[in-house]
Amino acid sequence: MLARLFPILQWGRTYNAQALSDDLVAAVIVTIMLIPQSLAYALLAGLPPVVGLYASIMPLVAYAVFGTSRAQAVGPVAVVSLMTASAAGAVAAQGTPEYLEAAITLAALSGVILAVMGFLRLGFLANLLSQPVNAGFMTASSVLIATSQLKQLLGVKVGGDTWPEMLGALASQLTHINWVTLAIGLPVTLFLFWVRKGARPLLIRLGMPPRPADLLAKTGPVFAVLVTIVLVAALDLTDRAGVEVVGAVPQGLPPFSLPSGDPALLGKLWVPALLISIIGFVSSISVAQTLAAKRRERIEPDQELIGLGASNIASALSGGFPVTGGFARSVVNFDAGAKTQAAGAFTAVGIALASLFLTPLLYHLPTATLAATIIVAVLSLVDFTMPVRLWRYSKSDFAAHMATIAVTLLAGVELGVITGVAVGLLLFLWHTSRPHAAVVGRVPETEHFRNVERHKVFTAPHILSIRIDESLTYLNARWLEEYVLRLVAERPALRHVILMASAVNEIDASGLESLEAINQRLADGGIRLHLSEVKGPVMDRLQRTHFLDDLGGKVYLSQARAFAELLDDDGSTPVQSADWARGMI
Amino acid sequence: MLARLFPILQWGRTYNAQALSDDLVAAVIVTIMLIPQSLAYALLAGLPPVVGLYASIMPLVAYAVFGTSRAQAVGPVAVVSLMTASAAGAVAAQGTPEYLEAAITLAALSGVILAVMGFLRLGFLANLLSQPVNAGFMTASSVLIATSQLKQLLGVKVGGDTWPEMLGALASQLTHINWVTLAIGLPVTLFLFWVRKGARPLLIRLGMPPRPADLLAKTGPVFAVLVTIVLVAALDLTDRAGVEVVGAVPQGLPPFSLPSGDPALLGKLWVPALLISIIGFVSSISVAQTLAAKRRERIEPDQELIGLGASNIASALSGGFPVTGGFARSVVNFDAGAKTQAAGAFTAVGIALASLFLTPLLYHLPTATLAATIIVAVLSLVDFTMPVRLWRYSKSDFAAHMATIAVTLLAGVELGVITGVAVGLLLFLWHTSRPHAAVVGRVPETEHFRNVERHKVFTAPHILSIRIDESLTYLNARWLEEYVLRLVAERPALRHVILMASAVNEIDASGLESLEAINQRLADGGIRLHLSEVKGPVMDRLQRTHFLDDLGGKVYLSQARAFAELLDDDGSTPVQSADWARGMI
Repeated sequence: MLARLFPILQWGRTYNAQALSDDLVAAVIVTIMLIPQSLAYALLAGLPPVVGLYASIMPLVAYAVFGTSRAQAVGPVAVVSLMTASAAGAVAAQGTPEYLEAAITLAALSGVILAVMGFLRLGFLANLLSQPVNAGFMTASSVLIATSQLKQLLGVKVGGDTWPEMLGALASQLTHINWVTLAIGLPVTLFLFWVRKGARPLLIRLGMPPRPADLLAKTGPVFAVLVTIVLVAALDLTDRAGVEVVGAVPQGLPPFSLPSGDPALLGKLWVPALLISIIGFVSSISVAQTLAAKRRERIEPDQELIGLGASNIASALSGGFPVTGGFARSVVNFDAGAKTQAAGAFTAVGIALASLFLTPLLYHLPTATLAATIIVAVLSLVDFTMPVRLWRYSKSDFAAHMATIAVTLLAGVELGVITGVAVGLLLFLWHTSRPHAAVVGRVPETEHFRNVERHKVFTAPHILSIRIDESLTYLNARWLEEYVLRLVAERPALRHVILMASAVNEIDASGLESLEAINQRLADGGIRLHLSEVKGPVMDRLQRTHFLDDLGGKVYLSQARAFAELLDDDGSTPVQSADWARGMI
Repeated sequence: MLARLFPILQWGRTYNAQALSDDLVAAVIVTIMLIPQSLAYALLAGLPPVVGLYASIMPLVAYAVFGTSRAQAVGPVAVVSLMTASAAGAVAAQGTPEYLEAAITLAALSGVILAVMGFLRLGFLANLLSQPVNAGFMTASSVLIATSQLKQLLGVKVGGDTWPEMLGALASQLTHINWVTLAIGLPVTLFLFWVRKGARPLLIRLGMPPRPADLLAKTGPVFAVLVTIVLVAALDLTDRAGVEVVGAVPQGLPPFSLPSGDPALLGKLWVPALLISIIGFVSSISVAQTLAAKRRERIEPDQELIGLGASNIASALSGGFPVTGGFARSVVNFDAGAKTQAAGAFTAVGIALASLFLTPLLYHLPTATLAATIIVAVLSLVDFTMPVRLWRYSKSDFAAHMATIAVTLLAGVELGVITGVAVGLLLFLWHTSRPHAAVVGRVPETEHFRNVERHKVFTAPHILSIRIDESLTYLNARWLEEYVLRLVAERPALRHVILMASAVNEIDASGLESLEAINQRLADGGIRLHLSEVKGPVMDRLQRTHFLDDLGGKVYLSQARAFAELLDDDGSTPVQSADWARGMI
């Protein structure tokens, strides 16, 4: 029990020198990668860059204690930072103490929500975010994020929460472009795009072994950071050309902070915090699962909620903003050889050392470089072929995907997620309330029963056989009544209805009520209801009710037997049609 | 198309003298039944009794034009009246013009909501109200309604929206009981309870044929009304003993009225109006379906929404409050021989005549008689054995039922419905996100594959066969990944995983993504993923994707063939275990 809540008690027991050395190497590489990322994502969240460093220390330690993924690298990530900016921006202006307080409070609320969901084992609620909705949200937020960073690249000052607002604001500022900033930002962007694909092959051609080449290519952003710092400092571009830089970053460890206890603020922030929690959890869990599976390890989704909850609470208590597992960063951590959660703790030490000693070096770092880092990072996550593939595979998934993209771009991230979840749920309920069923008949010379519309099969005018391809739950119970009664109304000669329940895994109380109603209504019309091929567990439950006593007909083990037995009972002396049909079987 | 929107164009064309005479007889009986009911339910809704008559004229005409049920009798019903009282009471005090305006606005909003749902074919949303939730809501509201009417029976003045409030208020007034009122109300209540069960057998024993006896028994409430009017008038009990009576009811036809256009009021009332619409629709549709099935007729649920919507709009425009199809009244209408929707229109004429000429006679009608009518009507709808049956049949349905009852009693009708829907949906999502699956093995000397935990079956250490008993949708996609990867992590010798998809009716985009992820992760671990028994439509869609190209293994037509073929491929020279297993098959 204790080891379940504190996974560190499990992996810590077998920790050895080899794991230590592997984790240290991975920590150094991730630290180098995380420094520009944390600064950039803090800027994206509308916060001072140093807050990004703060959010990359204590959360990593908390995750090392409570997390179950050995490779997960926690910290600020792009989409959560954008959501933080949107939520905090709704209650305070950027740059004010209230804005920072809102960001800290969001981290605290999100941490509490995640931890509570973990303790209540509510991880399944993350399922509400379907893959098309999640992908649509990621696409739209990446476009929003990239657009929001264009202003840093162009050296103009504009705002806007939605895409049309952002584009309009940018268009109005086109005459104020800072060309020197653009001359730094554009090459950096192109370099970073190239370095993702081109650096590794080049290094290998130059004789470097594949794995170091891979890791060195990942440090491309750091290289861009160093070069642009030197450039801006050497040419004094801030003063001479107005290139915006990070400026003075306070040296020192994160301060202790407390989230707001103001009920009004908490009331405004809990919905965005819930959305941040779910988006953060979903994006984090999928990368954790992928990496764990590669080494045949396991992660515990409900404990992951607790791990991410602890990270966010730790972030709130140390002046940070909402964090979660980062996709690119975790992959780098894994590739660099991280063996346990200790790699994360060592990364925290690395970032702490950076905030103690390196921050003066960041003074001349152009924000355009950070913007380029963000743009390249988010756009590489977008899968622009997704709509085409979804359209071909499933129209309703396509609809959910496009609705999420449209609402996120036009009305912002929060409404985007909510719309996506609502559309997905509505489509699911719609599908579930119209399940698949078919009128079936016997395939000649076999005991198989197939759809009368697809196969040449035998049927009898006094028997209606219906195969139900779905569990009978309250969502489709009413449909079943309508479906059966409509078919019955079309068949005046009917005497028997057989429901073939081979695919019915469950019948809930509403489904049972519908069956009772159908049975009663058929009996009123002089028709008997039969069941066939009822599964064992379903039959067990039916036997605990009066339904089987009230049933007008019988429960048959097989559809073939039901059909054969009822063929004779057509309400008359044997007629030719029945004999004919039986003869052919 | 036109005939679909106006069902009157269909049944009106074949209308004849026989149907006219049947409909007239039914209309007379329903009119007699509806007069005390409409007065009583108006009082329950906190409105002047005459509003009940207004709500029983134009809505019936509108339903005759737009409705599809030939036997449905529309008008005020108990639970909708209670919900009206709760919603209107939240925005205005009873007896004020604002209260009446709120009730009229609720009818208008509810009418628009129903009609829009009908045009958008959203009738399936009523499915969200599962049978246990609906039954729980009906039980709790009946108890609330009966309790709220006790004050009329006791002749005291108390309020309260929740059960504890009502009981507390009643207890504080026990010393103020009007004993004369109770001496009228209690015998009437007992008489009405008796008349439901005992009058019909008595009349038959006295020599009356069963059908007239049945219909005469249904007029019990009118008999009680007449006797108590005469009693109170003759003994002058209002002045001499303070017995509360209906008093002066304005004579005349309903006035034309318009709902409020105040956005603030509409904002407060649309949620209760939505709940009233759904509750009204669900209770109306089930009785309409039952009665239609008895004569092998059909009703159109989406057109029913339009019919009920038109009724409520008509009610709002003629000074009435929300209406829907009444259970008892529709059954009486059917039993009395109503053949078409014209019976409802004739009933409207009957009520119009009553409001023109009969209202002076109602002056001395004690409200205790109306309260007794309501108490007996609602309590006869309650099924107190339901919790026991649900407990035995399904624990989660029981939980939804009891939660709905508890919240409705303790926090009111609106929160009761919302909680019931939310609990039902949560439980459904929880179940759906944890579907049934089983590791299967081959039953000796057959080609059947069954659950390894229930049957003695053959398995091989290098093959894992999993039967999935549910469609793969976004709600369980993540579960599938976790389930498969956990099983794989436990089996170090594994080389093949076969997913037996015989019960998989659909794979949505999220399910496909999960299969791709599982395939990739298994490939990373040197394991091949195979599918078996994939259904035709599912296979058609998979073939439109890259999944089958990327699949590490094969798609087999049958599980038996997959198992037999992979048995050899255990990654070594043939070993004894595989030979042994094959020998036994």
